[in-house]
Amino acid sequence: MTQETSDRPSTPILDRVTLPSDLKDLTDRELRQLADELRAETVSAVSVTGGHLGAGLGVVELTVALHAVFDAPRDKIIWDVGHQCYPHKILTGRRDRIRTLRMEGGLSGFTKRSESPYDPFGAGHSSTSISAALGLAMARELGGDPGDAIAVIGDGAMSAGMAFEALNNAGDLGKRLFVVLNDNEMSIAPPTGALSRYLTRLYAEGPFQDLKAVAKGAVGFLPPPLQEGARRAKEMLKGMTVGGTLFEELGFSYIGPVDGHDLDQLLPLLRTVKTRATGPVLIHAVTRKGKGYAPAERAADKGHATAKFNVETGAQAKAKSNAPSYTSVFARALVDEASRDASIVAVTAAMPDGTGLNLFAERFPRRCFDVGIAEQHAVTFSAGLAAGGMRPFCALYSTFLQRGYDQVVHDVAIQRLPVRFAIDRAGLVGADGATHAGAYDVAFLANLPGMVVMAAADEAELVHMVATAAAHDEGPIAFRYPRGEGTGVEMPERGEVLQIGKARMIAEGKRVAILSFGTRLSEVMRAREALVARGVGPTVVDARFAKPLDREMILRLARTHEALITIEEGAVGGFGSLVAQLLSDEGVFDDGLRFRQMVLPDTFIDHASPEAMYREARMSAPDIEAKVLEVLGVALAKRA
Amino acid sequence: MTQETSDRPSTPILDRVTLPSDLKDLTDRELRQLADELRAETVSAVSVTGGHLGAGLGVVELTVALHAVFDAPRDKIIWDVGHQCYPHKILTGRRDRIRTLRMEGGLSGFTKRSESPYDPFGAGHSSTSISAALGLAMARELGGDPGDAIAVIGDGAMSAGMAFEALNNAGDLGKRLFVVLNDNEMSIAPPTGALSRYLTRLYAEGPFQDLKAVAKGAVGFLPPPLQEGARRAKEMLKGMTVGGTLFEELGFSYIGPVDGHDLDQLLPLLRTVKTRATGPVLIHAVTRKGKGYAPAERAADKGHATAKFNVETGAQAKAKSNAPSYTSVFARALVDEASRDASIVAVTAAMPDGTGLNLFAERFPRRCFDVGIAEQHAVTFSAGLAAGGMRPFCALYSTFLQRGYDQVVHDVAIQRLPVRFAIDRAGLVGADGATHAGAYDVAFLANLPGMVVMAAADEAELVHMVATAAAHDEGPIAFRYPRGEGTGVEMPERGEVLQIGKARMIAEGKRVAILSFGTRLSEVMRAREALVARGVGPTVVDARFAKPLDREMILRLARTHEALITIEEGAVGGFGSLVAQLLSDEGVFDDGLRFRQMVLPDTFIDHASPEAMYREARMSAPDIEAKVLEVLGVALAKRA
Repeated sequence: MTQETSDRPSTPILDRVTLPSDLKDLTDRELRQLADELRAETVSAVSVTGGHLGAGLGVVELTVALHAVFDAPRDKIIWDVGHQCYPHKILTGRRDRIRTLRMEGGLSGFTKRSESPYDPFGAGHSSTSISAALGLAMARELGGDPGDAIAVIGDGAMSAGMAFEALNNAGDLGKRLFVVLNDNEMSIAPPTGALSRYLTRLYAEGPFQDLKAVAKGAVGFLPPPLQEGARRAKEMLKGMTVGGTLFEELGFSYIGPVDGHDLDQLLPLLRTVKTRATGPVLIHAVTRKGKGYAPAERAADKGHATAKFNVETGAQAKAKSNAPSYTSVFARALVDEASRDASIVAVTAAMPDGTGLNLFAERFPRRCFDVGIAEQHAVTFSAGLAAGGMRPFCALYSTFLQRGYDQVVHDVAIQRLPVRFAIDRAGLVGADGATHAGAYDVAFLANLPGMVVMAAADEAELVHMVATAAAHDEGPIAFRYPRGEGTGVEMPERGEVLQIGKARMIAEGKRVAILSFGTRLSEVMRAREALVARGVGPTVVDARFAKPLDREMILRLARTHEALITIEEGAVGGFGSLVAQLLSDEGVFDDGLRFRQMVLPDTFIDHASPEAMYREARMSAPDIEAKVLEVLGVALAKRA
Repeated sequence: MTQETSDRPSTPILDRVTLPSDLKDLTDRELRQLADELRAETVSAVSVTGGHLGAGLGVVELTVALHAVFDAPRDKIIWDVGHQCYPHKILTGRRDRIRTLRMEGGLSGFTKRSESPYDPFGAGHSSTSISAALGLAMARELGGDPGDAIAVIGDGAMSAGMAFEALNNAGDLGKRLFVVLNDNEMSIAPPTGALSRYLTRLYAEGPFQDLKAVAKGAVGFLPPPLQEGARRAKEMLKGMTVGGTLFEELGFSYIGPVDGHDLDQLLPLLRTVKTRATGPVLIHAVTRKGKGYAPAERAADKGHATAKFNVETGAQAKAKSNAPSYTSVFARALVDEASRDASIVAVTAAMPDGTGLNLFAERFPRRCFDVGIAEQHAVTFSAGLAAGGMRPFCALYSTFLQRGYDQVVHDVAIQRLPVRFAIDRAGLVGADGATHAGAYDVAFLANLPGMVVMAAADEAELVHMVATAAAHDEGPIAFRYPRGEGTGVEMPERGEVLQIGKARMIAEGKRVAILSFGTRLSEVMRAREALVARGVGPTVVDARFAKPLDREMILRLARTHEALITIEEGAVGGFGSLVAQLLSDEGVFDDGLRFRQMVLPDTFIDHASPEAMYREARMSAPDIEAKVLEVLGVALAKRA
């Protein structure tokens, strides 16, 4: 403890700040020093906890400026995605808990309504902030909660359609609303897309062209000394009927670009807009992800997410791994398939590293598409690629595939187009918590006609499923796999094409059959060991497919066992529900079958380690063992 | 038959056209006449079948021009939404079946891959065409199917985020691709949003300013006579570093606005771009929805969708109705609640008429928000309104709520914000077919923690559910109701707040209990009548809630009956699956219960009347009766 404390930076100004209202007593000079201290404190905290670092460092000055000028929580500052909110948390009464970030029972790594009144709208997924802020602004106009609404959104997040939908609506409604575009030229990966290039053009000609931007309609907002020149510049350009920036076309007053690390620009600008704005205003602030901490600035991802690290060197304390991650297994297997099949292409939505497709892009740059944060488009674009004769793998996290759900139904499933969905981060994901849980994909995919839905029980199975998906031209197919490392099984030289809809017997047993879908299989086998010791070793089957089900196998298990238990890393409505439907259709329940479905519980589970989350979900080996004993206990009691 | 034939317009040129290749033999003058004949034929066909009329009439000349210049099916013309495709169907080998549009066994009212090779990508939902076309274009670049990809998309559809996502990606990839923006200033309702105003500004200064548009970078595309002036205009504007149209900022060459009804403009323009384009091109064509048919042009919705009608007068043959539509019952109930509660606000995504919110907007214009075709934003905007202290009703069709699914999970459910989802067109919807089926909402909502999910069994129940939703401030709540008329029950003077999670007993019976969720209740009661006559009248319960379930009632039914049958107008994974989960958790199956779940079958059901679709789904009264007899038959056989 002593050592940890002594490692902490000296923060005399920050030590005087508990809540944002304390910033009102500080001079601009002190605010500049506060920003430096806040940066040091953020680096220090994340060095202890790990987490998202680069994004927070990029908005230190914005955080100070917004809280110095606006009046939270009356004014509502909404951090898009929320992973840049650590400095905000430090300034809003949570400094004492900042070294519990992302730990079980500690602060969330994102903004969260239930955590603080200074988090008026939580996040985790990107690009929601403008919609939320507009809702708050219109509520205010109609007599709801008073105060300003300010959305702070990164340039990467602007590629998502819902940000555009919100701008389009906000520009039309025309009410007072602030959008701070935090343009750091990075989402997680460098952003792609025409919009990103456009934003770069806005400040490419010179560092910060206040004058030109001012001329485009924001004259009234700027501090007086700048206005005269602005008016002249505007004069010069008048007569244009079509022009101005993209944001002005959408009804916003555009101000910028400004240096997002220069409080001497930010403070007067925000004070002025706060006083004078009557409609929607977009402030284009240019920042650097990882700003002010050299190891982050040097990193390719600008310190996006990090393990615990040494503050001086930046060296991360990575836990040593025993087995390859599912993500890397997927990526290598896909590269392998693609090396033999030129029609295989890959699509990611701003997650080349997270999905492992960076490997694929290195080998096959023309065949890899990073469409930006744009899951709706990613899915339908994949459908178009399939309609054009390619074999697309659309690689998304389970939680982000939710963004493309309608497109899966409407563009892929109804048309039976052979899009391959590689669904990473399926199940509970650990430190990212409830917003990132991959809990629903099985339920929302497996009731779509013609969809094939697989889950890998281990990393070798994942290799087979990549091969199976590559070979499946008859319609859409999805395979899911979790965050983290595999189980260390021996890896096949090459993936084998699985027979669609066939389960595999893992262990023969008696009285109870456990039908496992996904990576709970290893917990099931741990439970089985304990049960074997008690003389009641169950049969264990890896279902492999939630759709189509292995009807023959399941009905046989039901016929030859007293009890059947399904288990899956997902919410109700998925695998277990499809098995229940089969069993009821076939009248299996008529004569009695002790049937149980182990699914994720009906709660949003807060961040913790995945293991702790599964313990809370009661889906670990002891829970499985207890469930088996429970169903057998009922039977024994009856027979007595 | 004779009379119908004699009513048909004279179409000498059209009669020579079976496939688009036949257009290559026609002169431009003949193409102009072909367009007139095609318009007359479209009006004639829809007068017989009913359907979407206005959109098709607006694109007659575009259809002729695209097929005259491009080479379908090698070149792939993708009609966004697809409801404007009737003229396209007439020109692509389907004229002989055009008077079967939207009828059982007849042509689909949308484009459909399985119907014709000239429909390279089907639709039904809006704003997918650019993503699909880009996929086809990139497939071509990688050695897949050759040919051009052309997306034709309305201005209303451009408000959806996925269209923006696709533009952003296409502008970045920079490959040859054509987007025809069909700007008719209408989606179904007049479009809202800043983009719509922007598009209007593009041609507000004069009718068709080819010159100015040309100057913005499309010089090389235009027919030679125009190029000199264009070059001069461009010269005038040079020196601007930021400017141009919104589409050019996104990397497209913008050409327009052009008169979308003037083949003398369209033909040379398309011929030129076809020859010269190397990157993405956006052609901005201004059209009139309903063009050329006076009754449609006069209609407020420009003849968007129509029943069968008299061609001369435009008078529609509406079937007389016995009961109010669910939509109108919802709207009146909401207006009633809102008249007593100033915090109630309403959100629609471009469907003020379809959802009935036009009524609400008339009474409370400031409290009604039409956000455009933008379901993602609609949901999160509603969440923002709720966070700001309002009581938002977000009224969407079931099938379109799929677009906002992630936002329901992430912005509403996780934050427990009291957004009220009014889900219209739940279940099978008739002539709009599989793309519009409201099959999945119960499954994708009812496994979300804290969500309340109701279904109205009749129109009186719907009134109660509106009141219940209005009163429910504890978290999100959804209620679903079908397309079409109610059952004619007596209506309550005012909605009554239902107790959350309580079912209602409809009829006591014996041996079999039927647990109905939604409007199948009337079919269940018809089945019960027949079963009473056989001496086996079942118990019937209206579940009202899929979540939370009435555990007490369901467990009691299971205890006191030999068989339990659930029925719902939705896919597996919803109400029946939640009941199965409850029964298995409670060990009810252990001792035998003849349990059956009646859900929509695992197929996409083609368009027909709703009644015919439910017959195909085996969810009508005779099917329910048969299911009861089946479970009883099994029992009788066993006991014998």
